[in-house]
Amino acid sequence: MAHHDIYRQGLEAGPANYEQLTPLSYIERTASIFPDALAVVHGKTRRNWAETYERCLRVASALEKRGICKGDTVAVLAANIPETFESHFSIPMTGAVLNAINTRLDSETVAFILDHGEAKVLLVDPEFADLAERALRIASARDILVVDIIDPNFDGGRRIGALSYEELLAEGDPAYRWSPPENEWDAISLNYTSGTTGDPKGVVYHHRGAALNGLQNIVSWGMAQHSRYLWTLPMFHCNGWCFPWTIAANAGVCICLRAVRAETVYQLIRDEKVTHFCGAPVVLNMLANAPDALKDFDHKIKVMTAGAAPPAAVIGAMEAMGIDVTHVYGLTETYGPAVVCEWNDDWGSASPDEKARLKSRQGVKNLVLNGLMVADPATLERMPPDGESMGEIFMRGNNVMKGYLKNPSATEKAFRGGWFATGDLGVMHPDGYIELKDRSKDIIISGGENISSIEVEDVLYRHPAILEAAVVARPDETWGETPCAFVTLKPGKEASEADIIAFCRENMARFKVPKTVIFGDLPKTSTGKIQKFALRERARNLA
Amino acid sequence: MAHHDIYRQGLEAGPANYEQLTPLSYIERTASIFPDALAVVHGKTRRNWAETYERCLRVASALEKRGICKGDTVAVLAANIPETFESHFSIPMTGAVLNAINTRLDSETVAFILDHGEAKVLLVDPEFADLAERALRIASARDILVVDIIDPNFDGGRRIGALSYEELLAEGDPAYRWSPPENEWDAISLNYTSGTTGDPKGVVYHHRGAALNGLQNIVSWGMAQHSRYLWTLPMFHCNGWCFPWTIAANAGVCICLRAVRAETVYQLIRDEKVTHFCGAPVVLNMLANAPDALKDFDHKIKVMTAGAAPPAAVIGAMEAMGIDVTHVYGLTETYGPAVVCEWNDDWGSASPDEKARLKSRQGVKNLVLNGLMVADPATLERMPPDGESMGEIFMRGNNVMKGYLKNPSATEKAFRGGWFATGDLGVMHPDGYIELKDRSKDIIISGGENISSIEVEDVLYRHPAILEAAVVARPDETWGETPCAFVTLKPGKEASEADIIAFCRENMARFKVPKTVIFGDLPKTSTGKIQKFALRERARNLA
Repeated sequence: MAHHDIYRQGLEAGPANYEQLTPLSYIERTASIFPDALAVVHGKTRRNWAETYERCLRVASALEKRGICKGDTVAVLAANIPETFESHFSIPMTGAVLNAINTRLDSETVAFILDHGEAKVLLVDPEFADLAERALRIASARDILVVDIIDPNFDGGRRIGALSYEELLAEGDPAYRWSPPENEWDAISLNYTSGTTGDPKGVVYHHRGAALNGLQNIVSWGMAQHSRYLWTLPMFHCNGWCFPWTIAANAGVCICLRAVRAETVYQLIRDEKVTHFCGAPVVLNMLANAPDALKDFDHKIKVMTAGAAPPAAVIGAMEAMGIDVTHVYGLTETYGPAVVCEWNDDWGSASPDEKARLKSRQGVKNLVLNGLMVADPATLERMPPDGESMGEIFMRGNNVMKGYLKNPSATEKAFRGGWFATGDLGVMHPDGYIELKDRSKDIIISGGENISSIEVEDVLYRHPAILEAAVVARPDETWGETPCAFVTLKPGKEASEADIIAFCRENMARFKVPKTVIFGDLPKTSTGKIQKFALRERARNLA
Repeated sequence: MAHHDIYRQGLEAGPANYEQLTPLSYIERTASIFPDALAVVHGKTRRNWAETYERCLRVASALEKRGICKGDTVAVLAANIPETFESHFSIPMTGAVLNAINTRLDSETVAFILDHGEAKVLLVDPEFADLAERALRIASARDILVVDIIDPNFDGGRRIGALSYEELLAEGDPAYRWSPPENEWDAISLNYTSGTTGDPKGVVYHHRGAALNGLQNIVSWGMAQHSRYLWTLPMFHCNGWCFPWTIAANAGVCICLRAVRAETVYQLIRDEKVTHFCGAPVVLNMLANAPDALKDFDHKIKVMTAGAAPPAAVIGAMEAMGIDVTHVYGLTETYGPAVVCEWNDDWGSASPDEKARLKSRQGVKNLVLNGLMVADPATLERMPPDGESMGEIFMRGNNVMKGYLKNPSATEKAFRGGWFATGDLGVMHPDGYIELKDRSKDIIISGGENISSIEVEDVLYRHPAILEAAVVARPDETWGETPCAFVTLKPGKEASEADIIAFCRENMARFKVPKTVIFGDLPKTSTGKIQKFALRERARNLA
């Protein structure tokens, strides 16, 4: 006999009590409640939420008039300017999917993305006109509507489009009424992985995940309303980790930034009273190593940093300036950071070194992520949380992508046994915090021993003359592989290969010490990630 | 031909990327990340999150062993003590539904609720043993398992149950593994409306709404992690407006409180460094009028107040003490407050009176509510936002109830044209903020003119001798109805009927001035709402 359940009938969902989750509701709400509050700052451009929302409505309406509808892709190739921000709302308002493209990619890759994502429209920042033009020439698709985003604060670049963004906007109806997605599971954006090997994969986000992650950022940072957010993190990187939607929910201020230079960042921090920003460790490193004269501000700032584990020394330098660093970790596939190194009051009594070590771990699941584990990649059996047993990091939750676009085999491979397999290797500490040890492919196997390149790098960063460091495997007849260090020295500092090897010997197990040290600049992706695949190739080609 | 939509295939939801929303995930997360952080304070009892979570797991396990499962109701009749807080997690962990019952109801109503909700278990606070015993005697159901919650901080009351809460807890397995709801739309709690007329209605909440509203509270208040929340608001009132779930997500501290007295509240504010609390205007009024010697604290506090519009004078008195008041508005049907009077920076330059007037309006939709309008109750046509045109207030969103339990006709009546009809009357101002004018039934119609009882009350509260006031209709042969004021004077203050009528004449239209003033205490519900139905009866019976 069926269990008698009095809650089963007469309590159905309907339009009054069930709304599809979407971050579009955030900008609608903020524009109606705080129409006059400052929304966007970019050079001399200052717009309030009513103006910004109207611009989004107009662009959405104009796109729709030109035939854009649900399931279409609209691509954007632009710096962190107001129009990129607006695209996070205008494009999904039509039911279409925003594809923000990394501006530092080569034209072949951009062409691949335009073809693979089947973009119908491309909004181009004239700074990237050459790149766009080359990509459009290579791409198979010939019917892409190209729109130039003329930035009054930028006088370089050139026009290649059929019309300007402002002309497009003028075609639109400011009274346009957007509809929420038919289903919160519908796609909202498409973000291609940087793809160091093979073709880039198109990661698809949905409205539900974007809405939840947008709120999660506020909760995680305990953000007060009207926070002032500086755009040091590219919006083409996991949709700026969902912060366009966060700032709309927060009724905050988007402080735009065409290029991340220490001088500009510190000037905006001071003049625009920036309260929050995000950035790769390389950005923090640049800020920490900038001339002291620039560091002229006296308010509190919060920073989130993700990517390779930030060296403890960088965290320490930021905190000395009054900038509170939260270390987060995630992947394009998880809407950016899904793991956060939550501060634990118990750590208050730890030594500064120990504190920095605790804070440089990747951490614990955020409020949206539901499951996080370190497990055997084959059996999915959890590794003991002993800080020693290395396994693959697995995640599960509403901030895991829908899947890879038109790539069922990659999607299937990524989802294993009800989990998303990150491909990253790490350990779980007894307190439940995970620590990243390496990308699977970044592990160096020397004489049968696994060497975490991150661990070696962390020691190198503590060397007083080293600005940046990366360690990769160098093929070796005897050992299979040996660690090879690439380092950039701080301006005016000196160190020899022997110095650095000696320093490593003092600070790590003998077998982990780099056998080779190469000096010079490090190749990086647009988001500040060091391109280890390029270094690996260099290491392979060493005599 | 169907539109070519590349996002339609190969991007399905699965266990890795779709989790049912539930606030239960918040306590699991907080207990695992902050096991040693303080969770609950009650007199001498202090428990951390690991202990609290383990207690929830044990109770859930014990309930399950005793046959409780999905779709069952478990009732709680208790003060704001730790066990009531725990019930917000333990009971839904089994799939069952929490029914927290108002402890100030009469035994007939409690019996009705136990029968109508079909409670299988009743957790009773010995303070309410008499009430529970009488109700159980009246109730038809005879097979309810009664459990006594023995509170070591309380020595009154008596045991009436088959076993104690601690005995039940001891039956449970601390390694119990709860499952998320099969569907986030599943019921999590049952809250009966106070029902001033007819039988109370059982409002059903779902996991999705509870999870979203739990987060919304954090965003709305910009709550920092580990906030210290004082339980002045009863947990049986809209599940303490979802704050048990909020505090779990926030890894905050629940500071419990058996009875709301000014002395106790101020002592806890000082000793436990309370940062946030909620309460009806009557609670704020009591605190504002307490002896100054009690008001010994120097940190900032945030308060949310809901219910009838708080008199501007009360808001002013709180703010003078450094307590920031946010005025919110909602109904049991909307998980408590769904409307919030968001502070607008433009108001900074308003006069103190004007500022208080702006802040005493009900406000705008919160982040979870999707639609809010003032409309014609029959046609649902929106009234112009002119601050004058009165209509019924309608709401729509994920914080609207599933419906009324076993009451399809009431549910159908409440959901009109895709909206939830609140039964409250109000206006929308040109800035989009709504202002409550009255419950439909509280409007006084005198000589064909509508009089808002709230408007008259607001003037009365500004009279220096008046502590509390309520205005209802008194039947009148000439006018149909006339306003009749019931007032309580402040201790040591004097005023005559003529004084008060003269004061009203100076401050409102002639036709709105009360024709009758009655002095004395006002009858109130347990949540501090003045019982207008009782006053209406008294007014009808006046000679």
